Parts: sequence; C-alpha cells; structure tokens
Amino acid sequence: MTDLAARLAAVIDPARIRTDADSLQQYGRDWTRYYAPAASAVVFPRSLGEVQALVQLARAERLALVPSGGRTGLSGGACAVAGEVVVSFEQMREISDFDPVAATVRCQAGVVTESLQQYALAQGLYFPVDFASRGSSCIGGNIATNAGGIKVVRYGMFRDWVAGLTVVTGAGDVLRLNQGLVKNNSGYDLRHLFVGSEGTLGLIVDATLRLARAPAPARVMVCAAPALEHILLVFHAFRARLTLNAFEFFSEAAQQAVLARGHVRRAVDTVTPYYALLEFDAEHEPAALAAFEACVDAGWLADGVISQSDTQAAALWRLREDISESITPRTPYKNDVSVVISRAPAFIAELDALLAREYPNFDVVWFGHIGDGNLHINVLRPLDMDIDTFRGHCERVNSLVFDVLARYQGSMSAEHGVGLLKRDYLPVTRSAEEIHYLRGIRQVFDPDGILNPGKLLPAAESA
Amino acid sequence: MTDLAARLAAVIDPARIRTDADSLQQYGRDWTRYYAPAASAVVFPRSLGEVQALVQLARAERLALVPSGGRTGLSGGACAVAGEVVVSFEQMREISDFDPVAATVRCQAGVVTESLQQYALAQGLYFPVDFASRGSSCIGGNIATNAGGIKVVRYGMFRDWVAGLTVVTGAGDVLRLNQGLVKNNSGYDLRHLFVGSEGTLGLIVDATLRLARAPAPARVMVCAAPALEHILLVFHAFRARLTLNAFEFFSEAAQQAVLARGHVRRAVDTVTPYYALLEFDAEHEPAALAAFEACVDAGWLADGVISQSDTQAAALWRLREDISESITPRTPYKNDVSVVISRAPAFIAELDALLAREYPNFDVVWFGHIGDGNLHINVLRPLDMDIDTFRGHCERVNSLVFDVLARYQGSMSAEHGVGLLKRDYLPVTRSAEEIHYLRGIRQVFDPDGILNPGKLLPAAESA
Repeated sequence: MTDLAARLAAVIDPARIRTDADSLQQYGRDWTRYYAPAASAVVFPRSLGEVQALVQLARAERLALVPSGGRTGLSGGACAVAGEVVVSFEQMREISDFDPVAATVRCQAGVVTESLQQYALAQGLYFPVDFASRGSSCIGGNIATNAGGIKVVRYGMFRDWVAGLTVVTGAGDVLRLNQGLVKNNSGYDLRHLFVGSEGTLGLIVDATLRLARAPAPARVMVCAAPALEHILLVFHAFRARLTLNAFEFFSEAAQQAVLARGHVRRAVDTVTPYYALLEFDAEHEPAALAAFEACVDAGWLADGVISQSDTQAAALWRLREDISESITPRTPYKNDVSVVISRAPAFIAELDALLAREYPNFDVVWFGHIGDGNLHINVLRPLDMDIDTFRGHCERVNSLVFDVLARYQGSMSAEHGVGLLKRDYLPVTRSAEEIHYLRGIRQVFDPDGILNPGKLLPAAESA
Repeated sequence: MTDLAARLAAVIDPARIRTDADSLQQYGRDWTRYYAPAASAVVFPRSLGEVQALVQLARAERLALVPSGGRTGLSGGACAVAGEVVVSFEQMREISDFDPVAATVRCQAGVVTESLQQYALAQGLYFPVDFASRGSSCIGGNIATNAGGIKVVRYGMFRDWVAGLTVVTGAGDVLRLNQGLVKNNSGYDLRHLFVGSEGTLGLIVDATLRLARAPAPARVMVCAAPALEHILLVFHAFRARLTLNAFEFFSEAAQQAVLARGHVRRAVDTVTPYYALLEFDAEHEPAALAAFEACVDAGWLADGVISQSDTQAAALWRLREDISESITPRTPYKNDVSVVISRAPAFIAELDALLAREYPNFDVVWFGHIGDGNLHINVLRPLDMDIDTFRGHCERVNSLVFDVLARYQGSMSAEHGVGLLKRDYLPVTRSAEEIHYLRGIRQVFDPDGILNPGKLLPAAESA
C-alpha cells in the first residue's frame, strides 16, 4: 500500500482504493487523448458521507481531487495529469425517489445517462437530453459540463432538467440545493452555479431530475445539401412549418468516416458536400414534406430520405452519431463553437474560407447542432504526423479561428466545456472582469483549490 | 441643492437628481406598505456609462444604492429605508436589437413588462411571462426577482427567457453576460446568478430576452370546487388530458374582495369555497370539457363556465388577477410559499388547520399558482387594528407556518423574493452553510456592500 493509499484508507475502505498502473491510466484520462494520465490513486466512494470525508481529508492534507464519471469528456475536464486523486462515482449508480406527480427522479452521480433514459421510459416518461456518449457518460459529469447534445433545439440543455442537487463543496460542506421545487426565489440559485462548473466548486453527489412526457412517434429525415450556406435556410424553412426535435448537419467527409467502418449504408444516393438530419413527431410528416419540397424548389436541397420504421430511423441517426467515434483514430482537434444563429451564415462563410486557407492539407470534418448555432469543426491528424506537431499546427490556426469567433461574440465552448483543452482560450468568450469574478467564486467554494485544479480557469490562477 | 445632490451631480445631470419630499416618498417604497420610506435622493440615469459612474461614486463615497423599476415588489426589495440613494431606471426604457431569426430582443432595465409583451405581439411573437403588475413592473426588477406569474406552468420563470444581461457589479465593473447565445459552456453562468439576486450583486442595465412563437387562440375556464383538497385532483385530471397555459385557484373570500369593487361579475352561479381558473389553447376545448365532466362525476367540481370570447376570457381572468389590488386596503400579510406538488395536498391540509386555529378572527384569503405548488396566503388586517399590532400577530403565526413549511422542504419565497420582508426567514429554506456561500458570493461582487444593503441576507451580515 502506498503512503497515499494509507492516508486515504482513513476515510474509505481500502478495497475501494486503487493505485495499480492500469487503473491510474484508465481513470486518469477522458475521450481527449492529448494528456498523459498521471493520477496517484483512484477511489470509489459509495455514499455522501464518504465523499464529504474524502473532501475534508483532501483539504486537510492538500490533496487535489478529480471527479470522474464516464470520462467521455472532450475537453480534458476529467483528466488527472498532475498526481491528483481521482474520485470515481461508478459505485454510486442508484436511481431512487421517483415522484410520478412531480415527474422527478433522483440519480446518484454515477448513473449512466442511458440508464436514466430507460428508467424514464419504463415509467411512461422521457428523459430528453441525449447524445452519442449516452451509454457511458454519467449524470454527475453531464451536470458538471451542462451537457447539450442532439435534442437541445427542442428540449434545452441539461441545466433545464435539474430540479435539485446535492453537492460537497471544496470546503467540505454538504449543500442540498433547491430540492425539486419548481418555484423558489430564496436568494442566489446555487444550483445553476454548479451546473457547468466542471468540478471546480464542488463534487456533485446526486441530482433530482425532471422527466418529460413520453414523446410521440418520430420520423427522421436526411437531406442532401449542395452548399453549407443552404443548411441554415433549410433549418428556417422547416422550423417555420413544424416543431423540430433535432436539426443536425454533417459534411460528406464526416459521412465518409462513418461509412468506412461498414456498419451503416449511405442514406441518400445523391452525393453532396453537406447533409442535414432532422427529427420531428410523426404527425408533422406532411408539413415536413412540404418544407422539403420548398427547399428543393429553392435549390437548397438536392435529395432526401424519410424513415419508414424505427429501425431505419436509428440507422439514419448513426450517420450523425457515429462521427465522433469514427474519427477518433485520427485524434481530431475539436472546435466546439457557437454563435447567435442569425450570425451563423456570415460566421460559417468566414470560417470556411479561413480553414481552407490555413489547413489546405488537413482533412476538416464539419458537423454539429446547427439549429442551436453550435458547430463542431474537427481537424484530423494526418496518420504520419505525431500528436505534438499536429497540436502545434492546430493551436496556431485555433487562435485565428477564435479571432473570428470573438468578432461574432461567440462561445469558445458551446457544450464540451473548458477543461484543460480550452482553458487558455477562455478570454475569447469571457472578459477579464468576468474571469476575475469566476476566480472569486471559485475561492468562495474551494478556498484551498483542491477540486480539479488547473481546469476551466486560465493558468494565471494562483491556486 | 443638498450636499448629497451636489456630490451626485459629479456623475449625473442635476436635472435628473431629486431630493424633494414627494419623490423621496414615492421612490422609497414598493407595493409593500410596511416600511417607512427614507431615501435621501433619487437619480435617473440614462446610459450604461452613467450607471457605472454612479456605482463607482457610491463605492468611493460609501453611498448605499437601491435599484428601482416599477416598485411593484411584494417583499420590500426596492424600498429605501435607511437613507439610500434610489437609482430609478424609468428613463431607460429602450427596446432595441430585435433579431427575428434568433427571436430575441434587447430591453433596457426600465422597459415595462406590458410594453415588451406588446412589442413582441407586433412582431408576430410572444413574451410569455405574465402577471397582474404587467402595466407597472419593469424588466430589470423582473430579472432581479426572477418573476413568475400566471403562465409558469407552461412557460417557466423569467429566468428561462433571459439570453443575455448587461450588469454593473457592486465593484463598478461592467459585465456582458452570455450575449444571446443558446449554448455557451464557458465557465460558471453568471447570468443565472444575477437572475433573482434582488439588486445585491449588481445593477441590471439591460437584457436580451427570448421571445416565443405567437400563442394559439385560448379559452379560459372557471370551475367551482367544493373543497380545497379537490383543486389538485382537478389539476391532475386536466393535465393528463391537455397542455395547460395556466392553472390558478382562489377562495370565495378572494372572489368577494374582487366582486366588492364592482368591476366584474361572479363567473359561476354556484357558490363554493374555492375556484379553479384554467387557460388552454382552443384546440384543447374538447379534451378540457371531458376533463371537466370527469371532475364533476368525481365530485371535485360543482359547476363551471368556459369563455365564449376574448372579452369574456379577460373578464374571467380579472377574478384572479384583481385579487391583490382588491385586498391592498387591508394591508394583507402575504405568504408566498411553495412545495413540491406531490406534497401539496398534505401541506395544504396541515396549513389550513393551522390558520383556522391561529387566525380565528382574521380573514384569510387563499389564491395562487397551484399547478407550480405555489400558494399565496394573505391574512387581512382588521380595519380597526393598527399595522404594527397586526404585523406582530402575523409574525408570530408566520413562524408556525414556516415550521410546517420546513418539514415539507418548501420555499419561503416562491416568486416574490426575499427583500426586507422575508429576510429573517431565509433559514427556513436555505441552510446555514448555503447562507454562508450566499454571503461569500455577495462579497465577491459587492465588496463594500453598497448595493441594496440589508436586503435578501439575514441581519447577521456585517456589510
């Protein structure tokens, strides 16, 4: 037993402390692959009391803690890179306190997103926040990063479904925030402060989440678009006629990456540089077909297909959802930016020209939740280029991209969060004054800077 | 010119500084009538720069500032009771930057709620947060108190419509928060911290607000309920069959107060102790009638009426919306509490028994947004009792009410905010640890405690 493990054993069963090399490697990293994992231990608490004791121990002994769920993050927020103790919530997966009248349920931080979705369906209800990592990502991480995903255009962000939170602050206090109330104007809403705080204010132990009514049967459409600038016109044409559950887009290069794995087939025979994927309630099918015809007449769409069964709908979704996994071997450099949607056409045109000029030899894969103004721009690493060289290229271009983004008053992290990867770009979106207040808040909740140090706030931080 | 006015004149045109007795009286109070106004000056800034200069002056000279909009608050949050300078936003009423694609608009803090609602309708859109004080309340105050009102059950609280905020913090910094983005996970969302902060963190100067699609034609129903415990059963019976825009209730005593003014007539001939008022889209009328029949069959409703015209719908709404104004001469002691809706039946039964026991000689008027678990319980002052004696009675009973509320984990202020009136009851809903963090946050944003001192946080505050 290492010295550290012995100290941790004061507050947690030694059987739930790991220091073997495999565990340190596995729990020290997330879906980014830029950072060499360097955790010093991994602990698996099972109760609120154990989490609180861990934080109090960490505070007394100045240990840094990294909260850990499914480690599907894309900004390095759950990476342990400097000898931190990883606090994994994977042994806290209880779903309880279902309230059919209020339509809420309590989830421990380690509950997997898909488990909650299935639980809701079994009650005749629906948990609407959804994204490709649903099978691994956990509720605690979803809240800490205010996860978005593919249904935001209809159902909002994860924040909108959090009715209550139990957290342990960096000072070791347990806070029970909001406790499921719909209306509660009793001072600053700390719940909203914790949503998106990326583990830097406190550890999320459990959450009371709202559930939606069961959705109506849905249809999925994939449409072929000859040009990127038409995608937003297509969005507006549909949105004017019907309520959309989702409106995604992806480039032919993205589709190629998915098709290359052989799991799904091309959806529309007409090959165009871009595609839109739409989902809507089945009752809106006539309106959707009318919108499609109007877009074809306008020259914005060249072809399209609509799902005839749930199986086909699922296959169409895979064309969009499998993109991230398909390009993982190319260690893509991910941009996850957003602008106000009325500024998106000009922003996209400027960005497209910039990337074509600056990355003439790299594959650039575009996709994203364009109905929310959110674009994922992935630059793929040439297979013969090492990661550091590639990252150097990308960071140089990144500063050009962010110059454009700042002019459009956009967000340098629409949904992935800041973590380690985007930390030094925070000033693109947040002013120096704002960052000063972010630091001040962190100091209030985590006075010794023991929680996820180095994440979210730029390096000038003294903690 | 007073000495204070001369100092203020360094940053604001003397024509927009008032120190006359009438102005100090008028701008020193809100719709509560418990506090003797004692402002020392009223200023009327016209720009962000002037607001910032005022705060910087106040900080340098340790002047206390009270932000002021329509002063329709019910918790004393906008009262000046200790020589503060009132900062009125009534000369900042600009509506600008309408974005039809993003469906957002920018409002200065002094824009009246109803002006925004009418502006939205003129664009073919809708601003859905609505309440009886719409003709006087201002956007800045709505945000500072996270206003709720009569459409929360469908459209949520004011918080849900704020896409961006410009504020001047107590330290004198200008922050431009979120700037209209739908997705922006770039660190703690300070926008949500300012919503509901009651002027204690910064002054809200303008806001970018989302607009909803124009609503469908609506119907209003008023139903007579023989017993309070049936009201929630009625709510569930309707909600299971249709989407409700609003679900309100009021007691016969409340209706009597409205009828006594002679502006509207009794809606349903059958007199029952309680009434429910429902609004829904016209397309749901068949479903609503079916729900009504089921409730009559179950014995939960005795009678009902449905609007046949918009004029009749407006008249029905007045039965609910005129309650507050009708009882104002009785200086009602207002409770504005909420519980999770599944706990509401037991809570209401316990509260009803408590009030009948403790207030046998006082008129108690019940109404509220019961679909959100939010009850307004108004105890009316006997006309021959002075305010201080009455308030003493009410505060004694209040502590009994709040004991019950705490057991049900409810909120001591569902939508009115804390202000002065509920400040000392904050611990009913927020733990000592939470209050410690609220103080810490206040200290970060308003280090000298110049903004709305004495509001929201219990008296132990040192600032």
